[in-house]
Amino acid sequence: MTVEADFTQLKERLQAIEDLHGAEAALTWDQATHIPRGGVEARARQLALLSSLAHERLTDPAVGRLLDSITPWAEAQGADSDAAALVRVARRDYERATRVPPAFVHRLAEHTSTSYHTWERARPENDFAAVRPLLETTVELSRELASFYPGYAYPYDALIDLAEDGMTVQEVRRLFGELRAGLVPLIEKIRSRPEVDDSCLDGDFPEGAQRAFGETVVRAFGYDFGRGRQDKTAHPFMIKLGRGDVRITTRYRADCVSDGLFSTLHEAGHAMYEQGIDDALDGTPLFHGTTAGVHESQSRLWENLVGRSLPFWEHWYPRLKEAFPNALNGAGVETFYRAINKVAPSLIRVEADEVTYNLHVMLRFDLEMALLEGKVAVADLPDAWRERIRADLGVTPTDDRDGVMQDVHWYGGIVGGAFQSYTLGNVMSAQFFAAARRSVGDLDAQLGAGEFGPLRDWLTRNLYRHGRKFTPPEIVKRATGERLSIAPYLGYLNTKYGAIYGL
Amino acid sequence: MTVEADFTQLKERLQAIEDLHGAEAALTWDQATHIPRGGVEARARQLALLSSLAHERLTDPAVGRLLDSITPWAEAQGADSDAAALVRVARRDYERATRVPPAFVHRLAEHTSTSYHTWERARPENDFAAVRPLLETTVELSRELASFYPGYAYPYDALIDLAEDGMTVQEVRRLFGELRAGLVPLIEKIRSRPEVDDSCLDGDFPEGAQRAFGETVVRAFGYDFGRGRQDKTAHPFMIKLGRGDVRITTRYRADCVSDGLFSTLHEAGHAMYEQGIDDALDGTPLFHGTTAGVHESQSRLWENLVGRSLPFWEHWYPRLKEAFPNALNGAGVETFYRAINKVAPSLIRVEADEVTYNLHVMLRFDLEMALLEGKVAVADLPDAWRERIRADLGVTPTDDRDGVMQDVHWYGGIVGGAFQSYTLGNVMSAQFFAAARRSVGDLDAQLGAGEFGPLRDWLTRNLYRHGRKFTPPEIVKRATGERLSIAPYLGYLNTKYGAIYGL
Repeated sequence: MTVEADFTQLKERLQAIEDLHGAEAALTWDQATHIPRGGVEARARQLALLSSLAHERLTDPAVGRLLDSITPWAEAQGADSDAAALVRVARRDYERATRVPPAFVHRLAEHTSTSYHTWERARPENDFAAVRPLLETTVELSRELASFYPGYAYPYDALIDLAEDGMTVQEVRRLFGELRAGLVPLIEKIRSRPEVDDSCLDGDFPEGAQRAFGETVVRAFGYDFGRGRQDKTAHPFMIKLGRGDVRITTRYRADCVSDGLFSTLHEAGHAMYEQGIDDALDGTPLFHGTTAGVHESQSRLWENLVGRSLPFWEHWYPRLKEAFPNALNGAGVETFYRAINKVAPSLIRVEADEVTYNLHVMLRFDLEMALLEGKVAVADLPDAWRERIRADLGVTPTDDRDGVMQDVHWYGGIVGGAFQSYTLGNVMSAQFFAAARRSVGDLDAQLGAGEFGPLRDWLTRNLYRHGRKFTPPEIVKRATGERLSIAPYLGYLNTKYGAIYGL
Repeated sequence: MTVEADFTQLKERLQAIEDLHGAEAALTWDQATHIPRGGVEARARQLALLSSLAHERLTDPAVGRLLDSITPWAEAQGADSDAAALVRVARRDYERATRVPPAFVHRLAEHTSTSYHTWERARPENDFAAVRPLLETTVELSRELASFYPGYAYPYDALIDLAEDGMTVQEVRRLFGELRAGLVPLIEKIRSRPEVDDSCLDGDFPEGAQRAFGETVVRAFGYDFGRGRQDKTAHPFMIKLGRGDVRITTRYRADCVSDGLFSTLHEAGHAMYEQGIDDALDGTPLFHGTTAGVHESQSRLWENLVGRSLPFWEHWYPRLKEAFPNALNGAGVETFYRAINKVAPSLIRVEADEVTYNLHVMLRFDLEMALLEGKVAVADLPDAWRERIRADLGVTPTDDRDGVMQDVHWYGGIVGGAFQSYTLGNVMSAQFFAAARRSVGDLDAQLGAGEFGPLRDWLTRNLYRHGRKFTPPEIVKRATGERLSIAPYLGYLNTKYGAIYGL
């Protein structure tokens, strides 16, 4: 076989794996949007089967042999070439997957499904006892998963590395420590100032008008509805079903405009990343966003850096007022801008403001590491949660529904590896935005004119098109010229909230 | 290995095949309802892959060995046992599948997708030239498919047998001949009578009210929305995504009530069959309706024998009038009943009345046999169509859109094997309905009281619950005590239309 024939064969195999993942995504989307009650059990089995099939194909020893055969040829094309990146990333996926026994993959898929559905029923009933034994199993499975990857300085580095290539628990702790040191004084200063009046956000916001307004904005961002669509779900998400099919979901509250609007902008940010990947990478593992953290940097960039900025609303606020003639209480754009940026410690992560949000993440990261290390038992987790959120945010959940059971993550398979990416994404979003600002001309003037083209093009050129070709440190360095740093993010928060709160 | 262990292993294998088909169904449903333009290409590939995987697993020689091992044990449980039926049907599926080379399956799946999408674009543009070369390939592929099954008296019996176990071209021709001999004089007599006034069907029928009314009726039939749902599509269909997930689709015309309503009743009939199968058969090839013909007998039974009957409307017509206060022109129930049963030769099969409908089917059956036998070339098909529909129905299509391109079937993969089932279904529907009438007490009084329970229970007991356990001749014999016969159907048509037209 020539190396070209091996490359073709490898690409065919990778294409089939991608197609299995696409089918899984379609079934997952349907499960969240349209499935009738009665169909849930069969669907769990179908999803577990597709997941096993994809794992089986990825771990086929032939994949390893083909990679061995191709590597010198691919590397000769230069580290930045698609071929070299493909071999690099496919090798990483292959080696990661082959370490996990198929029986574990199957057990985990079944447990994930049971745990998720139990949580879904138990959360509204505030029934932590129902999820407790499942969460205990989840912690055991998470430790077992980490144990398949020996050789890390710290065993749970494996879980972080799976999510954020090259990141370690120690590095997360260092970044989070620095960030906390910057955030806590800012929150203290804000607390000393008068509360922002956000009453203009409440009122009569008919769902149809919310949908129309949100779709107009994300279409202007550049989200392509010809290669996607938006639906309603209880928990908003973005999902790629295949090339040309990147969907988002949102939700609406008829009595408040901000929830639905910002979740639409957030998910559109994720989706534009996926829609912006170079089509030449289709059918390969490169045809996805780099990592959860880099992905989150894009959703937060469009949601917050753009969507909660004053220039953005100078253009869009008159349009919002037109869309909702019976609401907004005659508030001016400054009042509205302050309202959507109100800082107030609260119980729910996904509803938290930009400043206190990261404390929610740190709380979860620390607790999940404590669970994995056996320093906190699952039975004691609700108390540990309450203690910590009181200490960090000064609020106390009256029940577990809005406490330890509020996020799906711990009830959806694995503990450890997910939460840190939310804050890493926030940190990166400001660093990317600052670099774009240096490059695209007067970004504020563009946003103020409803003009997103230059920003979107910069992001496409520097991030989107590369897919998974580069690791997070590489992409940060390539796009911004610097290493990952919390400085731009803290600078952004201090400037913005200093102005809003007159600090 | 004990025989029980082999049985368990076989059932696990069959379960995975069913789950692959369920995933395929979910992707197909999404393709018809929600997919964005951009996602069509990736979806075709995903579907072809799942189809290949299911074929690969079904044709695994291990399946044959397990069947050999189990057969004596299963047969010892009696021909009517689930185990014996499972072995019988799985063996038939296995032997049919192993005759078809995987490369052909793949080629056919790709061709089907291309052909379907070409037809979808070409039909509105009336562009037969665009589909002609594809249809020529379809005819070749259909002949090739038939050639994999030697040993039939007539080569294209294979295609009929695949769709309707045990049916032959000769038998279809005999039945159709007898039926035609009964239908033509009936149509002649109806033509000699004054036209029925169906103007009450046109008017202002808001879509939301149509949906609500249709859902109320099919819920009363017994269609379970907890294990299904209804959506809108260009072409209505029923599809099973797995146990507890049997979906229907419909469409609406805001200016006419009958199109949407009867398509909802029709698809609900299909769906109730699938929902009524014994859960003990789940995960096996028995967990589906017997054949397309028996399936159609259930959709037509609920659509026509029930839904176009006078007793049915004695209960529902006051409710219809309430739902549409601005329509129906004050027509009484008799007028409405005559309107929905108006006989008038027309161009479009799916809009045809009960009496002329079967001539549409016969036309297609004869033409597809002529195509397969090489008696009509694809290039000459539009002319042959026009000639035949003029001769049979006295109408002439002005274009191919409403002529040779009107149905998807010839553009969706295989020519031959699909159309006869529509008329076989009509014939069976009357035979089943007559048998139910003999058994359930005063059926007309029940329908007139909006009471569907006794009929539905009879159908569940005699048909639905068995799934594919029995062949069509077996199920007809078991349910009605007699062999398939056109007599009940012709009797039904003559009595009903005799009364409507005063013959």
